[in-house]
Amino acid sequence: MPESIPENSVGLVTPQSRHFSEPLLLECGRTLPEYTLAYECYGELNADRSNAVLLCHALSGDHHAAGYHSMADRKPGWWDALVGPGKPVDTSRFFVVCANVIGSCKGSTGPASTNPEAGKPYGLDFPMVTVKDWVQTQARLADVLGIAQWAAVVGGSLGGMQVLQWAIDFPERLRHAVVIAATPKLSAQNIAFNEVARQAIMTDPDFHEGRYYEFDTKPRRGLALARMVGHITYLSEDAMRQKFGRDLRNGKDFSFGFDVEFEVESYLRYQGRSFVERFDANSYLYITKALDYFDPAAAYDGNLTAALAGVTARFLVVSFTSDWRFAPARSREIVTALYANNLEVSYAEIEAHQGHDAFLMPIAQYVEVFGGYMDRVARECGA
Amino acid sequence: MPESIPENSVGLVTPQSRHFSEPLLLECGRTLPEYTLAYECYGELNADRSNAVLLCHALSGDHHAAGYHSMADRKPGWWDALVGPGKPVDTSRFFVVCANVIGSCKGSTGPASTNPEAGKPYGLDFPMVTVKDWVQTQARLADVLGIAQWAAVVGGSLGGMQVLQWAIDFPERLRHAVVIAATPKLSAQNIAFNEVARQAIMTDPDFHEGRYYEFDTKPRRGLALARMVGHITYLSEDAMRQKFGRDLRNGKDFSFGFDVEFEVESYLRYQGRSFVERFDANSYLYITKALDYFDPAAAYDGNLTAALAGVTARFLVVSFTSDWRFAPARSREIVTALYANNLEVSYAEIEAHQGHDAFLMPIAQYVEVFGGYMDRVARECGA
Repeated sequence: MPESIPENSVGLVTPQSRHFSEPLLLECGRTLPEYTLAYECYGELNADRSNAVLLCHALSGDHHAAGYHSMADRKPGWWDALVGPGKPVDTSRFFVVCANVIGSCKGSTGPASTNPEAGKPYGLDFPMVTVKDWVQTQARLADVLGIAQWAAVVGGSLGGMQVLQWAIDFPERLRHAVVIAATPKLSAQNIAFNEVARQAIMTDPDFHEGRYYEFDTKPRRGLALARMVGHITYLSEDAMRQKFGRDLRNGKDFSFGFDVEFEVESYLRYQGRSFVERFDANSYLYITKALDYFDPAAAYDGNLTAALAGVTARFLVVSFTSDWRFAPARSREIVTALYANNLEVSYAEIEAHQGHDAFLMPIAQYVEVFGGYMDRVARECGA
Repeated sequence: MPESIPENSVGLVTPQSRHFSEPLLLECGRTLPEYTLAYECYGELNADRSNAVLLCHALSGDHHAAGYHSMADRKPGWWDALVGPGKPVDTSRFFVVCANVIGSCKGSTGPASTNPEAGKPYGLDFPMVTVKDWVQTQARLADVLGIAQWAAVVGGSLGGMQVLQWAIDFPERLRHAVVIAATPKLSAQNIAFNEVARQAIMTDPDFHEGRYYEFDTKPRRGLALARMVGHITYLSEDAMRQKFGRDLRNGKDFSFGFDVEFEVESYLRYQGRSFVERFDANSYLYITKALDYFDPAAAYDGNLTAALAGVTARFLVVSFTSDWRFAPARSREIVTALYANNLEVSYAEIEAHQGHDAFLMPIAQYVEVFGGYMDRVARECGA
């Protein structure tokens, strides 16, 4: 709980919600008859509607990017360190929008939502959704908000993939694309980690083929394991060593038992347990599949340059040296393909030991690069 | 099944077993009243008993290092590629011994064995065992076999840790130590992966606090997940890309469902499933803890050089460039500490894309280095 709202915070914010009753044809071939998007807005849209910035969230994120929902909140939104007055995404200059992706569980329609045709939660009857589908829904939201063109679309990790897809699918609807700690496609190792997570959930006896809502239970064990696996990949080996080393939780002698013993074990178990309280297991399945499927170059025989041929946005691409989930080499693949299309690209490889999670943190060099870029974006639209 | 036994194989071998009725005081403070070691021997002990080589196995390994148990065997022993006539561990020159560690489930006493005091399987009543304990049992086996001094003690991964412990605990009982793809201690990340594996097993409803033997079941789902996580860490990202890439199992179109879709998913599920048939879940718990606990420098305030002060063996240390489980930097820590003690050390960092599993494979440069070193060891003992 904040004693008082910090000065560089967007402050208390109220989530919003928009129902779309027009059917959405999805990449998988199925149609979502209707859906809701939960979203938040910070800052003011200027008179010529030129200062809007879209934020795209990652796997376990949501529309609550910054500020507080109430004075009782223990923590602000997930990107509060970088979104707010005077921060890189400066809400005193930009009108900032962030929407929860469909398939998630934070207010937008997903597998835990009621299937209008069945009168009970979708479960695994929810259609598979992709990054491309998310971009479609975000474009519809932009229409509703009266935003013809974003000053910038910005995101990290899975959010960065959405930014890339925006630049491909709606080149005329964004001037700048900020792609942070992302990849043009998952590697076999990335998919392997996602598959272990999914298997942990789906083999949990409380999964009930995704219909656990009806059994008044949930696959707690499986989802906790999935999150533990994820967490290992979000931190660098170095960050783990600095954070935990081989420290023991109680004193210095081994217990020679199977209870929690090393600090890192305690941390992982806590992360697993607490995630179960705030995330739906089916949403974890759907969103990890969206990650696996993302590969805009696939339709071009693996040629990313060809996939980006229609792109017109100017780019900032950022990676972090210790990120082994989506390593700098993956970001450089994007940069190379953008250059090959004669696009304007700034690329920064930030020296950071925090691993993939670095994109969430106000690391000085990162704030400088990201803030500097966004300052130019703001000045362009007179903000 | 081999159509015929290859010429450079040790051929058909018969596992042996030795019961020890003298109690074993373990590092954890408890005593194992009696135990059995399963082991295999290849080659002939020479007249002055100077050509004996001990092989130490890794997490899921056993005493069956080379050759075949019957003509119906689908595969030879786990290190057959490097152990046999004319191979680096040349069974036409050495008398080679490999014993299954206690705590395992392949013939040596472990949690699935009958607790003589209870008349039923130990389960989690089995005492915690450590690398130091294993070395004690191997030394007792050496006594029984009449081997006062090993020409070399050799092992990869967890086997390499046993080699290091041998050199510390029984300096007079080995002339050479060959430590391959090992580490002087696990990192926080290594422990984290082990912890996920253990949590997968222990939260499986079929675990029954380790007493699943009595319920005529086993934690299949948990053990399969544990193995899947392990497998990701045994392969390099590069090896995974070369082996699977983003290839789909059936054709080229996404299924947009949760069945197995990418080749890497199929591989992992198969590895998980098949492991359950051949390994005991409790053994997986015990052996991963032995890995976590290994840290010979701990008693010397983290000073590995001090921990190795009494060592007299000559060393070959080998690491593999793409091994991210126990990276070359970990092997170099061992090498540095050995040098600081003015010990004779050969160190080779083998260029290999296979990751940690490379130590099991007959990679040309590795075979040359390892074979060359073992040739000198053999010549020293007139073999």
